Amino acid sequence: MPADVEPGDLATTPLPEDRVGLLEGLTSTRAVRRYLDEPIPPAVLRALLFAATRAPSGSNRQPFRFLVLTDGPTADAAKAMLGRAGRRIWAMKERAEGYTTGSGLDERSPKARMRRTMAHYVEEFERVPVVVLACYVRYREPTPMDGASVYPACQNLLLAARALGYGGVMTGFHGMVEEELRALLEIPDEVAVTATVTLGRPAGGHGPVRRRPLEELVFAGRWGEPAAFAVDPPGTRHTAAGPPRPTGR
Amino acid sequence: MPADVEPGDLATTPLPEDRVGLLEGLTSTRAVRRYLDEPIPPAVLRALLFAATRAPSGSNRQPFRFLVLTDGPTADAAKAMLGRAGRRIWAMKERAEGYTTGSGLDERSPKARMRRTMAHYVEEFERVPVVVLACYVRYREPTPMDGASVYPACQNLLLAARALGYGGVMTGFHGMVEEELRALLEIPDEVAVTATVTLGRPAGGHGPVRRRPLEELVFAGRWGEPAAFAVDPPGTRHTAAGPPRPTGR
Repeated sequence: MPADVEPGDLATTPLPEDRVGLLEGLTSTRAVRRYLDEPIPPAVLRALLFAATRAPSGSNRQPFRFLVLTDGPTADAAKAMLGRAGRRIWAMKERAEGYTTGSGLDERSPKARMRRTMAHYVEEFERVPVVVLACYVRYREPTPMDGASVYPACQNLLLAARALGYGGVMTGFHGMVEEELRALLEIPDEVAVTATVTLGRPAGGHGPVRRRPLEELVFAGRWGEPAAFAVDPPGTRHTAAGPPRPTGR
Repeated sequence: MPADVEPGDLATTPLPEDRVGLLEGLTSTRAVRRYLDEPIPPAVLRALLFAATRAPSGSNRQPFRFLVLTDGPTADAAKAMLGRAGRRIWAMKERAEGYTTGSGLDERSPKARMRRTMAHYVEEFERVPVVVLACYVRYREPTPMDGASVYPACQNLLLAARALGYGGVMTGFHGMVEEELRALLEIPDEVAVTATVTLGRPAGGHGPVRRRPLEELVFAGRWGEPAAFAVDPPGTRHTAAGPPRPTGR
């Protein structure tokens, strides 16, 4: 890992070598919400943002912009706003989605584990090594496909983190403090903030990616029609969709 | 490439081995619009859709669904609708964005090359080996972040294609024929069609990924503030943003 490359040397420094395969990375990247308390070196940040900006966008217009918050007074103030937003959002979700009832009372349940992870994530938000605000420069009236020109880049960012031994997660925390955040960071009116991505070196292990069985997510030829090829590979771990039910089941 | 695995054997067949690195794949995947006239084998389709569905979504709700169109009367009818839509959309763009004026008159210009590629893509749309309609099952009123739960999966789909020697591109062709397409494919009312992705084995070579200089896309701490680490690696190819200007420059 090129942890010691100075920014002035980046123009002559290639991207880091790969140690993870492409398909392996796509199928094993998961949300990372616990980070070691260490900064991300410039050469790693460069690689992450370079990968993000290689993503496609409509007509290759590249309307995505990435506002990277590391340290300093403005970044710290922005992280504090986002942290407050995250704590309020999580407090609402915790109640609304039954994290404190049913199996959530069993400390070993997946629900209780998720609750601890989320509580830690929002409590320690101000210490997240890097926060990236993914933005979208509007060039026309909003359409439902605008996200197709910014969320692929966010996914590239998260995948590139995985490639280099880092991890992250995408949130919507900006939504609750958008006005003050825009003022602080001088974000122009024609620019939409579309995601709050946190990044850092993972603390501790992270489990497998779990999804619904492939046959529930993929159809062939017509809605609801099973696809003969939609078969999970050996060893796939499943989960039900979404947060726990309000009933606590 | 596991071209000869029957669907019945997929449950005991692992995903293909990687031959492309993760960071390399993220930084070298580009839009592929010319395909060889050959089907995509079941083991490859399985890997592509498995990778797509490993993408993140809000609260891991997995609201994404993929409707895969290969062959047969319904798939052919859907491809024909989408092809008509694509030809109409391209005809409008070709005029509106000056592909037939200025440097577009020079057959060797990037603009003329793009025009030939797009003309071929929409003319031959019905022969695209695989069309995937990426869908989103609504569970709440639309929000600007809905795309964050489906476009990362579309990007995974395109990256997985790259991993296995295939390629594709995301379009909005469904938008122009949505009503008849939904009726044909029996797509329920609560499901939004969010992208039309075409996939196949690339015909011919594909150039490098070109973007604006990294320093134009990445800021640090505050909007417009240069990021010291935002330095393109050696050998990066640049392009201006977006389609050619209507003036023809």
